[in-house]
Amino acid sequence: MNHLFDWHVLDDSVWAAHIAAALRHYRAGKTWTPAAPSRSLALLFFNPSLRTRTSMELAGAQLGAHVTTITPGQGTWGFAWEDGKVMDGTEAEHIREAVGVLSRYYDALGVRVFASGTDYAQDRDETLMRAILDAATVPVVNLESAFYHPCQALGDASTLMTHFDGAAKGKKFVLTWTYHPKALPMAVPNSALLMAARLGMQVTVARPDGYGLDPGVMDQAQHYAARHGLTVEESTDQAAAFDDADVIYAKAWGGPLIYQDPDAEAARRQDFKDWRVTSELMARTNEAAFMHCLPVRRGVVVDDAVLDGPQAIHLLQAEFRLHAQKAILEHVWDLNPREEERVSGRLSASLFAPAHAEDGA
Amino acid sequence: MNHLFDWHVLDDSVWAAHIAAALRHYRAGKTWTPAAPSRSLALLFFNPSLRTRTSMELAGAQLGAHVTTITPGQGTWGFAWEDGKVMDGTEAEHIREAVGVLSRYYDALGVRVFASGTDYAQDRDETLMRAILDAATVPVVNLESAFYHPCQALGDASTLMTHFDGAAKGKKFVLTWTYHPKALPMAVPNSALLMAARLGMQVTVARPDGYGLDPGVMDQAQHYAARHGLTVEESTDQAAAFDDADVIYAKAWGGPLIYQDPDAEAARRQDFKDWRVTSELMARTNEAAFMHCLPVRRGVVVDDAVLDGPQAIHLLQAEFRLHAQKAILEHVWDLNPREEERVSGRLSASLFAPAHAEDGA
Amino acid sequence: MNHLFDWHVLDDSVWAAHIAAALRHYRAGKTWTPAAPSRSLALLFFNPSLRTRTSMELAGAQLGAHVTTITPGQGTWGFAWEDGKVMDGTEAEHIREAVGVLSRYYDALGVRVFASGTDYAQDRDETLMRAILDAATVPVVNLESAFYHPCQALGDASTLMTHFDGAAKGKKFVLTWTYHPKALPMAVPNSALLMAARLGMQVTVARPDGYGLDPGVMDQAQHYAARHGLTVEESTDQAAAFDDADVIYAKAWGGPLIYQDPDAEAARRQDFKDWRVTSELMARTNEAAFMHCLPVRRGVVVDDAVLDGPQAIHLLQAEFRLHAQKAILEHVWDLNPREEERVSGRLSASLFAPAHAEDGA
Repeated sequence: MNHLFDWHVLDDSVWAAHIAAALRHYRAGKTWTPAAPSRSLALLFFNPSLRTRTSMELAGAQLGAHVTTITPGQGTWGFAWEDGKVMDGTEAEHIREAVGVLSRYYDALGVRVFASGTDYAQDRDETLMRAILDAATVPVVNLESAFYHPCQALGDASTLMTHFDGAAKGKKFVLTWTYHPKALPMAVPNSALLMAARLGMQVTVARPDGYGLDPGVMDQAQHYAARHGLTVEESTDQAAAFDDADVIYAKAWGGPLIYQDPDAEAARRQDFKDWRVTSELMARTNEAAFMHCLPVRRGVVVDDAVLDGPQAIHLLQAEFRLHAQKAILEHVWDLNPREEERVSGRLSASLFAPAHAEDGA
Repeated sequence: MNHLFDWHVLDDSVWAAHIAAALRHYRAGKTWTPAAPSRSLALLFFNPSLRTRTSMELAGAQLGAHVTTITPGQGTWGFAWEDGKVMDGTEAEHIREAVGVLSRYYDALGVRVFASGTDYAQDRDETLMRAILDAATVPVVNLESAFYHPCQALGDASTLMTHFDGAAKGKKFVLTWTYHPKALPMAVPNSALLMAARLGMQVTVARPDGYGLDPGVMDQAQHYAARHGLTVEESTDQAAAFDDADVIYAKAWGGPLIYQDPDAEAARRQDFKDWRVTSELMARTNEAAFMHCLPVRRGVVVDDAVLDGPQAIHLLQAEFRLHAQKAILEHVWDLNPREEERVSGRLSASLFAPAHAEDGA
Repeated sequence: MNHLFDWHVLDDSVWAAHIAAALRHYRAGKTWTPAAPSRSLALLFFNPSLRTRTSMELAGAQLGAHVTTITPGQGTWGFAWEDGKVMDGTEAEHIREAVGVLSRYYDALGVRVFASGTDYAQDRDETLMRAILDAATVPVVNLESAFYHPCQALGDASTLMTHFDGAAKGKKFVLTWTYHPKALPMAVPNSALLMAARLGMQVTVARPDGYGLDPGVMDQAQHYAARHGLTVEESTDQAAAFDDADVIYAKAWGGPLIYQDPDAEAARRQDFKDWRVTSELMARTNEAAFMHCLPVRRGVVVDDAVLDGPQAIHLLQAEFRLHAQKAILEHVWDLNPREEERVSGRLSASLFAPAHAEDGA
């Protein structure tokens, strides 16, 4: 079954074909391509959403499918997740029944379920999303889980391919931590890191001490970089990291400390309020594109002047969510199998060709 | 006007035609049959829903209709219900206007409004649902009212006809009360009881003392049973009731005591925590199918081993909600009048033929 | 860009064409006219809605468009509105990004954002709706803002044209304030006043001392009336105002006092609990049609006998919301440009012809 649990588990050829398909939808613009009539999709949002919900509903509608959005707890009851649970508390239904039933009705499910922020093993092992996948008998699209956000990653990769006119490889991509009043999950930084490394970009993760990403994710990113003769770098000097950057990808996240001692993390974070993307920092870059997955806090994560300036491509990035998700639905429903093969051969040859000189090879 | 207030008020021939239509949709599977383009349906959920909402939205969509789901109080104001009410409290709109307006917009309404659990006469007389029917100028489908759940009943009847390959008549159907932390409404047990009796099954209601169903509903069930030469039996011995059962239909409900003395009922219910469907109980049956309308509390109402075992048909039962509701929409919109006549003659002849020997006749 | 910020900013010819189009949809009844396939519409409701949401969803669906309803704060985060805001509070996203992103996805936006009730300058200047319009790159339809409700105004004008068979001009239209337990916004009375004056009706605003509408709005209404040789009258004598009325349009609103001293306004309002539309008051009229935008509080704003009697046309009025909004979507999407020109010439000639004798000219 064509689940989309995470994008990095897809083969290079499928991965490349997804980018090609997203670009195809981008070029088609507002043209609807009803390739999936008589199909239906249910979206389960255990956490809030604006972009993902609307772009996924539209992605389905533009393909001719029927889409229902479900917000558990709003008009439905809450769900129990654990195996063997004696359900004598507030939850009236087990996720196994809920997903089992929805699998009988719909042709695919999209599910958003964020990190707990308290149980590192559960979040790293994607326990909740895996419970959904186990219970489902139709394809499941991950709409952001504890550690991964594949729809964002595909949208971002396609945005970069568009922005650099196909030549993202070798460009300097800085994933910069920023201050935020809340300790946010790591799904987006994880996904952005893996995506940029796999594209063959020169990746630097700029973040304060104590805010390093998960070692397993970093290893996977290094593996991707190595295929291009590159190394993912880490820096605690935000300003220096911006030097000569081609892309600034800003994102706030809580470090591993939030799992061990949330109060200590909250206190520590206050020391880094100046990790904010300013015009001064942007001036150090190679006229870098500014990216953010949104929602973004103006004046806290990034200054208005940057977000309202010509280098910001966050709206294009958001737009690509729609195109990317149409590609993902085509994938899970096998709508363009032959095109996928054809395109992926060509594109993956170019995406994964031996690194150029400027790649550091 | 083709309201679907409750299923038991339909003539035998219409009732039989509904089952036939649900089975037709089941056999068609994922094939969409857009028989109702340019029609629209509004669903009003005064109480939570997962299956009913999604299956009804899909039922409409698969027939080509536009469906809107409204959850009063979420994005709308609350409604007043009483005639002659001076509305100087928190409710901003009377149900008469709300339903009157929606009748101008939509071609049918679906409404869920649960039992009060406090006013027995109001619940038994279906005061709230009748207020909706009075105000509506388009057909209304009951999506579960105080005493009835016709969509569930039709789905269940069709599930049984499928499970027994058309030969449900004479099979032993046990509606068993179970413990539940809450005193639940009686719409589902009422509807299951009436449905099984009308199908000519040998019905036993197993429940503790004090949890008998409404006398009027029991009388109606006895009337159906008598047409097949049968009698609905009641038992306070759950284990004995399971002997030789062909179907175990589990459901928790609060007894009449919740209307008179809710605290006494809550205390009393604790004495029956062992009314739970276990593998041991199921072993006494004739390899009975296990049914539940869902949501179900694992480990409280039924053990995991039963629900995850081969005898459980609760997911098929849930699936049949979709097929049944397509049949119901076809009925309220008169989409297949000739087919209805044709099928119902044949089917009702077989459904309501004189009882066979094993029926106890 | 064809925003529909408010109806009174449209030229006479466009305004007249809108009425003609709404009447065309009314005559077409349940016939769907899918003139906008492959278009999509997002509805943002910052405040509750029943009629507007359902009629706008249907308006889109009946034109063949895909419609998504978003209720910020329910399944999404809250938004920041101010320019230059440092977003270190509870709001996670600025309206500029939210609307910028939705503009990338959808072909039009509908937005409801009520009056603050506390900041008169902000409400009068429509600061929030203007922030939306500034951020949008697709047409925006005002679904009720601080001061205006153009969808209601167009629906009401079309209702009147239907009720009077095209001859609304010169008829006596009484906009009567009523008591209500809450101090409601002025968008509907403002819009009703401007609409009736522009149609050339003889308008009287009946309201207690201290409940006069905004001077700028009154001036605009006088300007419209003057074009027909008329004057908008104001009266603090509700009963006298009803004499010989052809239309009673009831609406509660908070006066300017709510902005200066809400407690004083709440106390003052209690003195006018008898400003309620009764059968006795209606008997003074020229068999007037009773109108209300809904939701309406029975027994508080209007008596049951009036609302359930033959003079009430509030359900027709609600129905016209659907027809009006189809006209509005056709306008913002330029679906019938030629028809608009053709019809508007004819209709505006008749709507804006020199006033007849009974107009007071």
